[in-house]
Amino acid sequence: MRMGSDSLVVFARLLGLAIAVVVVYWFLLFKSSFAPRKGLTKTTIHALLMVIGFILVSGEAILIHRWLPGSKKTKKAVHLLLQGVALVSAVFGMWTKFHYESGIFSNFYSLHSWMGLLSVSLFAIQWVTGFLSFWHRGEARETRSTLLPWHVFFGLYIYGLAIATAETGLLVKLTHLQTKRNLPRHCAESVVLNGVGLGLVLLCAIVIASAVLPKYQKSHSDEVKELIISSHSHYAITRKYKECLYGDAKFFYLGFSDSVFIEL
Amino acid sequence: MRMGSDSLVVFARLLGLAIAVVVVYWFLLFKSSFAPRKGLTKTTIHALLMVIGFILVSGEAILIHRWLPGSKKTKKAVHLLLQGVALVSAVFGMWTKFHYESGIFSNFYSLHSWMGLLSVSLFAIQWVTGFLSFWHRGEARETRSTLLPWHVFFGLYIYGLAIATAETGLLVKLTHLQTKRNLPRHCAESVVLNGVGLGLVLLCAIVIASAVLPKYQKSHSDEVKELIISSHSHYAITRKYKECLYGDAKFFYLGFSDSVFIEL
Repeated sequence: MRMGSDSLVVFARLLGLAIAVVVVYWFLLFKSSFAPRKGLTKTTIHALLMVIGFILVSGEAILIHRWLPGSKKTKKAVHLLLQGVALVSAVFGMWTKFHYESGIFSNFYSLHSWMGLLSVSLFAIQWVTGFLSFWHRGEARETRSTLLPWHVFFGLYIYGLAIATAETGLLVKLTHLQTKRNLPRHCAESVVLNGVGLGLVLLCAIVIASAVLPKYQKSHSDEVKELIISSHSHYAITRKYKECLYGDAKFFYLGFSDSVFIEL
Repeated sequence: MRMGSDSLVVFARLLGLAIAVVVVYWFLLFKSSFAPRKGLTKTTIHALLMVIGFILVSGEAILIHRWLPGSKKTKKAVHLLLQGVALVSAVFGMWTKFHYESGIFSNFYSLHSWMGLLSVSLFAIQWVTGFLSFWHRGEARETRSTLLPWHVFFGLYIYGLAIATAETGLLVKLTHLQTKRNLPRHCAESVVLNGVGLGLVLLCAIVIASAVLPKYQKSHSDEVKELIISSHSHYAITRKYKECLYGDAKFFYLGFSDSVFIEL
């Protein structure tokens, strides 16, 4: 693991861990006059499944490509497995809301629930597509490489959408406490939940950065040099041309093609 | 304008227009028992400035690179100008909240306000950096081309964050109507505001796609094939190739370049 990716992964893990600890503490253990400890209620299970089981596990699955050693197949299998865990958590997390009141969709009136339904549905489609693609290794390499950027684009978009949904969920929870239980507007509890919200916003940036930023930043120039040299062995390359490739190659990295570069 | 980018821009515009019309109608003209028409209140001005002046104008500024003909300098100048308008709207939109209650930050207790402060601050930093970079044309091309992917990454991230903040704002507005004015949970009004929320989620996807998806999708593989052939056959760099690498395509190849290297 190189320096750059190392720090990104470590930072993402520490932040994810901090968020998990605060969420578990706040929803399971925290007790006060306005929020009596109620143990594992459906609301608590919903929050834990969505933040930890769905968002944090899904983020970890995205990070897999950044740090896990081994073959591409291993990475893909672990990625698929972790995203599967995230999907099950998300579906189960939604299920706690299906049964919350009378009627399956009676609880799905808010923007939070609409955004949640959208992100979980897209996530399910994305996972099924990824699953099918994984088991169709025989398909033309070109087809799969054409699909990959779309997979990454939609994957990161759905991840961002899930986090935006979590933000609305945290806001609903706090507004509920403030209006129904007279929680004061400025208090330690709201600071903690707002902190979780900002933590998720930051985590989103780090995880997406880990997916789109260059993986082998240090050795990048060397790789490109090798590439140019190998493909041009006997030919002169003008300075302009080199610059052209150098400049462009950076952008390719934003396109997640770093691994391709390395494998060439 | 090419086919793909054409449809993306047209779709983004139509969606943006629809959102603007609904927001103006809902906040300015809509009148009912629970939401009497109050004209230009500070809340209304806040909503209009943030959704139309900040988010929609900022999205338009991102799209500029996709469709505006002319030199790079013109595009950058228009992009900078539009983002300047968005920044002024955002600051003025926040200002309506500074004066809302007693004390400048007395109104900044919610997750919505924290996310808003964060996104507007980041947006301001991003704009100032872009402004300085625009007026320092003399700087090494390499430095600017190194900064560009970061500018795009942070720009799109801040755009997404602004939209996530708008979602929490819409939710606050609806929750407020539901608890303080007894708006029923299932009603046409909440469907309209939720629709605006989902519209913004979709707009976010289209605008980001327009920034990261290849502009010359059709001809891309051909360009690269030519590049490879030409570079292996002593040919000087063709004009077409220069356009391919230098042109406005920038790093908008994002990810779609895998296939290029696989083809090598």
